Amino acid sequence: MIRTYELEHGGKTPLYEQLYRAIRQDLLTGAIAGGERLPSKRALAEHLSVSKITVETAYAQLLAEGYITARQRSGYYAEHLAPLAPAAAPAVQTAPAPALAEAAETPSAALFPFSVWARLMRAVLLEDRPALLESVPGAGVWALRCAIAAEFGRLRGMKIAPEQVFIGSGTEYFYNLLIQFLGRERRYGAELLGHRKLARVYAANDVAVCPLEMDGDGVLPQALRKSGAQVLHISPAHQYPTGAVMPIARRQQILRWLAEDEGRWVIEDDFDAEFRFSGLPIPPLQSMDPCGRVLYLNTFSKTLSPSLRISYLILPRQLLPRWQQTMGFYSCTVPSFEQFTLARFLSGGWFEKHLTRAKKYYRTVRERLLAQLAAPPCAGRFAVLGAGAGLHLLLRVRTALGDAQLAALLQQAGLEAELLSSFYLQAPPESARGCIVLHYADLSPETAGAALTRLCVLLPE
Amino acid sequence: MIRTYELEHGGKTPLYEQLYRAIRQDLLTGAIAGGERLPSKRALAEHLSVSKITVETAYAQLLAEGYITARQRSGYYAEHLAPLAPAAAPAVQTAPAPALAEAAETPSAALFPFSVWARLMRAVLLEDRPALLESVPGAGVWALRCAIAAEFGRLRGMKIAPEQVFIGSGTEYFYNLLIQFLGRERRYGAELLGHRKLARVYAANDVAVCPLEMDGDGVLPQALRKSGAQVLHISPAHQYPTGAVMPIARRQQILRWLAEDEGRWVIEDDFDAEFRFSGLPIPPLQSMDPCGRVLYLNTFSKTLSPSLRISYLILPRQLLPRWQQTMGFYSCTVPSFEQFTLARFLSGGWFEKHLTRAKKYYRTVRERLLAQLAAPPCAGRFAVLGAGAGLHLLLRVRTALGDAQLAALLQQAGLEAELLSSFYLQAPPESARGCIVLHYADLSPETAGAALTRLCVLLPE
Repeated sequence: MIRTYELEHGGKTPLYEQLYRAIRQDLLTGAIAGGERLPSKRALAEHLSVSKITVETAYAQLLAEGYITARQRSGYYAEHLAPLAPAAAPAVQTAPAPALAEAAETPSAALFPFSVWARLMRAVLLEDRPALLESVPGAGVWALRCAIAAEFGRLRGMKIAPEQVFIGSGTEYFYNLLIQFLGRERRYGAELLGHRKLARVYAANDVAVCPLEMDGDGVLPQALRKSGAQVLHISPAHQYPTGAVMPIARRQQILRWLAEDEGRWVIEDDFDAEFRFSGLPIPPLQSMDPCGRVLYLNTFSKTLSPSLRISYLILPRQLLPRWQQTMGFYSCTVPSFEQFTLARFLSGGWFEKHLTRAKKYYRTVRERLLAQLAAPPCAGRFAVLGAGAGLHLLLRVRTALGDAQLAALLQQAGLEAELLSSFYLQAPPESARGCIVLHYADLSPETAGAALTRLCVLLPE
Repeated sequence: MIRTYELEHGGKTPLYEQLYRAIRQDLLTGAIAGGERLPSKRALAEHLSVSKITVETAYAQLLAEGYITARQRSGYYAEHLAPLAPAAAPAVQTAPAPALAEAAETPSAALFPFSVWARLMRAVLLEDRPALLESVPGAGVWALRCAIAAEFGRLRGMKIAPEQVFIGSGTEYFYNLLIQFLGRERRYGAELLGHRKLARVYAANDVAVCPLEMDGDGVLPQALRKSGAQVLHISPAHQYPTGAVMPIARRQQILRWLAEDEGRWVIEDDFDAEFRFSGLPIPPLQSMDPCGRVLYLNTFSKTLSPSLRISYLILPRQLLPRWQQTMGFYSCTVPSFEQFTLARFLSGGWFEKHLTRAKKYYRTVRERLLAQLAAPPCAGRFAVLGAGAGLHLLLRVRTALGDAQLAALLQQAGLEAELLSSFYLQAPPESARGCIVLHYADLSPETAGAALTRLCVLLPE
């Protein structure tokens, strides 16, 4: 007799995972005894009306974790769990194995045009077969380089040739390549406040980074000059986490600094620049640079999906021969399948449609949060900074509390947010105290609003 | 009136590319005049009985290359090509843009079980949607780590926990991480003969690599000791390009060297080890190492498809906390979609089936080449070395010619092969002269055989 498991078709948990969990439960409780033969894959699949692959995957998972064993030409058998469990458990558990956790779709995931993407993937499988099986060219798939050049050019009003576009698996990957290209003996400067991973990548590469003082417009030119930095790593369109947008005057100052010495370079890290909610889009620093020494980076992780892992580098034309010579030996790190799919997604106008839809959604969330912050009990308790772009808000809390106490209150209120002081490349100044960095892309406005209200109640007057 | 283009459905060239080429031809010849309005995407798609996406992609390509322009709410127009052509052409052409070239399916590509892979991709799209939209865990998708641990354990008779497996986009990517993990101040040693890219990655990372003398069994222990190297980078299962398999006695010598000093490490680069054609599989050095200082690398580029870009690192258990602490901040570089698909491919037994099929095919090619080499006119002209494993043969040509002359003859004979002397990390010794490295994975035996015959005719007696 084959056991029946209730599986939820079309639910949030994949079928194979539901089946895996159900059988594991029976194995752990002894409902399936040690040594018992499990039904064949085909029989169980027919019995449950699921595909054979679903049963195979569930069995493979149980096998991998040591719950069952396979005997050749005979099938799968339940392990005798009591005596064998310790040996099957891994000796060192570095991190909880998270992939089998119940997945709840975040708002940003729900925005992803999954059905269009899946349709394009199917089209790639049908139509691009020969190209899919070839080696990926080192710089990336030509169709994607063309599509990015066209789309980027159109969105940002720039003329980019496909040859200038390089595809890679994530911005951190490109940081590594840029360090190798520019040389680790150079002096690097970065905004005093920034992505903590940036500092970790530089440190892992044995490269020293000077933290550069900033004001509301971004890096201070005098601090930049004083530092002696030769390479400046910045996000002028939307500094993270302050949200500052570098105005044209400051951009020109930076470009003057760049022009003074041929050994100077700018890495323009432009992630999130697509999400501006007021005013016109700001042209990248690269488009204003007559020297050809601004290296431009952007990613589709924020605008599409973090599971996609596609970033791109746009190089000034005059650097192409040197890049080819020194970095051209590296293989491309992105599978061709994703590249062909993304090329179709861009060329077909889906990216632009998605961006419009996502911006509309994020603008609503942002406005609801801002309205809530302006109303009781929040009114007067927070000053909102850097609300012009990006997917986070910076809130200065009007409080005398230290950051350790504030962090405790955030946790008590259930507000998933970080403190600005944790983003400094060196010891944070007193002025950073009491600032909250609130990422709202994956918050529901209701939950965030309720947590903010709880925080206001908890905060001492 | 809408022009009709003859498109080949199900052919080797994707439909959109055929359409793009056909329209481009009309634009270049003037069959479509400058300023002429192109048919709407929908109308052309209906007229040609192709999907709208096909037309969109073709138009996008033409747009990206400047052949046509888009006018809002009006459609697409042919450019006036004569005056505009020079401006539209990119100023710097680093490399020929190859993706639109006619793709011929290589034998190794034809072996790839495309229909199974496409079916699994569709299953992932249908069943794994929530997990697909989440961030990929830094170490990789749990299901794939489990599947690799299980599969690798079964094929190589080893007990690996999924926590020990890390997923990354290619072996070169992992070389970069391992240098960061072990430290660039250490002294590295590598086989005197090896992958030229290995040397380039180390050089790009400012790491000095000592070339280590070898004999037929691999690196010489006395050379290793004399070099003062602290990290040894080797491929004991199948040295590239000599094809040498390191015997157990030499392995034990290497492990004794490793055990003597806690600052010593081995990077075991095990690519191609799946393709052994005689004898039992050789257990990896890592499985024999009691010190826990062998870092194991392998890839699916050779066994599945070079466009897949999935490699994996297996770490000894005791290193996991340290890796997590120092390298754990890096995001995973492989899209989750490929990881879920590969996990199903491994768990479902498809990988093993594919490997059996591929080995059978490659064995046939190998045997035909060896037979040809043993028969006139080749008999007596070549000695075959390193024929035990991997997808290439090493042929010593019985000739007094220097390598420059030999290279010219290879080209004249149309034999796509390289000379062993070009693989040396330093100036090649006299003993390397006259050796050909012949990769046969992507050669048809007929073509290769004919080229070898031509070479024999060209070679002076």
